[in-house]
Amino acid sequence: MHTSLTCAACGLDHAVDQLQNLCTACGKPLLAGYDLAALRETFTPDAVRRRATRSMWRFADVLPVDDVSEAVSLGEGQTPLLRLERRGAFAEFENLFVKDEAFNPTGSFKARGMAAAVTRAVALGAKVVALPSAGNAAGAATYYANRAGIECFLFMPEDTPPANIIESVVGGANVFLVNGLISDCGKLVKQGCEQFGWFDLSTLKEPFRIEGKKTMGYELAFDMADAAQATQLQLPDVIFYPTGGGTGLIGMWKAFDEMQQLGWIGPERPRMVVVQAENCAPVVRAFEQGADHAEMFANASTVASGLRVPAAVGDFIMLRVLRESNGTALTISDAELLDGVREFATQQGIYACPEGGAVWKAAQQLLKTGWLKPDEKIVLFNTGSGLKYNHLFPVGGLPVLDHTDPDCLDCVVG
Amino acid sequence: MHTSLTCAACGLDHAVDQLQNLCTACGKPLLAGYDLAALRETFTPDAVRRRATRSMWRFADVLPVDDVSEAVSLGEGQTPLLRLERRGAFAEFENLFVKDEAFNPTGSFKARGMAAAVTRAVALGAKVVALPSAGNAAGAATYYANRAGIECFLFMPEDTPPANIIESVVGGANVFLVNGLISDCGKLVKQGCEQFGWFDLSTLKEPFRIEGKKTMGYELAFDMADAAQATQLQLPDVIFYPTGGGTGLIGMWKAFDEMQQLGWIGPERPRMVVVQAENCAPVVRAFEQGADHAEMFANASTVASGLRVPAAVGDFIMLRVLRESNGTALTISDAELLDGVREFATQQGIYACPEGGAVWKAAQQLLKTGWLKPDEKIVLFNTGSGLKYNHLFPVGGLPVLDHTDPDCLDCVVG
Repeated sequence: MHTSLTCAACGLDHAVDQLQNLCTACGKPLLAGYDLAALRETFTPDAVRRRATRSMWRFADVLPVDDVSEAVSLGEGQTPLLRLERRGAFAEFENLFVKDEAFNPTGSFKARGMAAAVTRAVALGAKVVALPSAGNAAGAATYYANRAGIECFLFMPEDTPPANIIESVVGGANVFLVNGLISDCGKLVKQGCEQFGWFDLSTLKEPFRIEGKKTMGYELAFDMADAAQATQLQLPDVIFYPTGGGTGLIGMWKAFDEMQQLGWIGPERPRMVVVQAENCAPVVRAFEQGADHAEMFANASTVASGLRVPAAVGDFIMLRVLRESNGTALTISDAELLDGVREFATQQGIYACPEGGAVWKAAQQLLKTGWLKPDEKIVLFNTGSGLKYNHLFPVGGLPVLDHTDPDCLDCVVG
Repeated sequence: MHTSLTCAACGLDHAVDQLQNLCTACGKPLLAGYDLAALRETFTPDAVRRRATRSMWRFADVLPVDDVSEAVSLGEGQTPLLRLERRGAFAEFENLFVKDEAFNPTGSFKARGMAAAVTRAVALGAKVVALPSAGNAAGAATYYANRAGIECFLFMPEDTPPANIIESVVGGANVFLVNGLISDCGKLVKQGCEQFGWFDLSTLKEPFRIEGKKTMGYELAFDMADAAQATQLQLPDVIFYPTGGGTGLIGMWKAFDEMQQLGWIGPERPRMVVVQAENCAPVVRAFEQGADHAEMFANASTVASGLRVPAAVGDFIMLRVLRESNGTALTISDAELLDGVREFATQQGIYACPEGGAVWKAAQQLLKTGWLKPDEKIVLFNTGSGLKYNHLFPVGGLPVLDHTDPDCLDCVVG
């Protein structure tokens, strides 16, 4: 259980035993802190390995619960790290892995954050949660709220992919479409929270979605050790992360710091790579300009709905992580990232989300420029399942065979 | 690695070192056998628990590989067993669990079978596989073939759910729609195998899809022990299984026998419950009539595409399992099973497939009749993700808020 909640910008401490959103002084995100020194005795890699818990809650000691039994859980986390086959363009990489976050409840990494946030919100008395979403966060919020037995209000841009809307409607959330962007939805959530007393679950506007997502960083250290058949935890050389709100990136960086304080790893860190869409790249632009904060990206558009975040609350933390890690940031066009999805599917057997397609194309690009070495240990994050993006791949014109025609197979092999 | 392949009906042995389909003498399914006595020393529950393998291949000793490194794997298996919250109609059950197979590559339990079958087919030289599918098997075959780097031919009824068709097309399989039922597709596959030398991956027509699916039974023994915080493996009192081809049911029953021979469990067995759709219930009808084999079910129809199997190759084995286990068989209407999906979603936070909805409604029904006791340990199998059945839940008429109207939230809370 966390022992502190501190503003990431001004350092102000906030009470841990009540519902919190942004810093009450400066409006920036709060970060949870733990008594890591006290945990060093009992919370060891070996202890974690012995736990039967098949979810991210095997790291309960650094999550907002006193005991794993308090978790609102649907089995999130403990996703596989798959080594990619050396085939097609993938053959140029000697040590390329994908952390496949499709193996989560509601089919995306958003489950980790919502599990942690809903767990803590409910423990502190929240009865209704609300958030804006243009994609996978909607379903995750709906289903974790249902698991906890609380109510959920969702505000979604009317052009949100149908799969995201349907799963939330089936789940019985109060779904409202909005004739605007996710930022417009966010304003309505803020207004609704003030007016109706909902708890705001918007990303980084409460402190625990990041705590859930940081478990990707913890798991990775075990996954890489397993892949190397080693006992000592280890991190990859480079992590490619598709970046919308950036909570996962920030969360993993926090996890690495915590692991070092726990004595699990040394000071070494992966180079972090932010991948955004060509037409929605606020963090890439700020990184290239050497800025500390990102400007709102006007007329943002991309089929990768998880990347369509024109302004992120945690922009300044991401930019800090990129520089501290000697990382980089780049964009991928929609046409390229859809090619990436097809290559993942046909050459690896993984139906990745467009965001996953983007990081793969980004890795190819950085190998060409020499920024990556072919033998480096590289992890791509596929943040969700391609199944939620079927609308991007309309099929039609498939041959229909007449099974009563004895020659109907003649057309099958050319 | 298996040491024998024996016909489930006539007992004839077949060579293990070459590709096999049905029994060459009587045309019935072959079952793989292992030298379980020799495995007793090293293949123990504790040894399994210590393995880092995060997939069903932690049971590699009883799968068709010499070593786990040979497996064609995408991270299948090790799905969570979730205890259901006591809420709504679920409150009447004291020990109700769901084994959530949505946590598999391609979003369904079909991944387990295909992982094992493709692994062995490729090891024995298959370059092209083919199968009929009206649902989730198509995507699983596509993606495991891609993972292995071989070709896949699919024959699907033209009314197959769009999600199943799209994922296979994105995966680059050779997809052919057919103006008929899955049995018509199966005939075309058979003809194509003869004509073009494809390897037939149809369920139970090769020996290893069942081997992959049996891992559900192995895992369940560990899951139930974990849920009871016990070391000794244990099985539930009752298992509800949505039954199309029935490979999972047959596979689990085989797993229990193997576990007993390994000394892991005693002779106790769960009562097995077959759940089928009202308008496609060949096994239920045969069970009720006391028959040894099921008749083809005419005019089969149900929205639960996994249950739309009018004639199953393994019918006689399923009927044997039902009787040996003191189990039962019942049907659920399409309207009821969709209600079951909604109840799972809204009351548990699980977007189940229609087949999962069906087993939940079946459990309710058998509690009412007294066949189930409220305190029995009951496991429902949710065989796949609801995300692949979005077409069953068309949404429309959702409110669209005009975010430029300052009063637009007035309609939100009634």
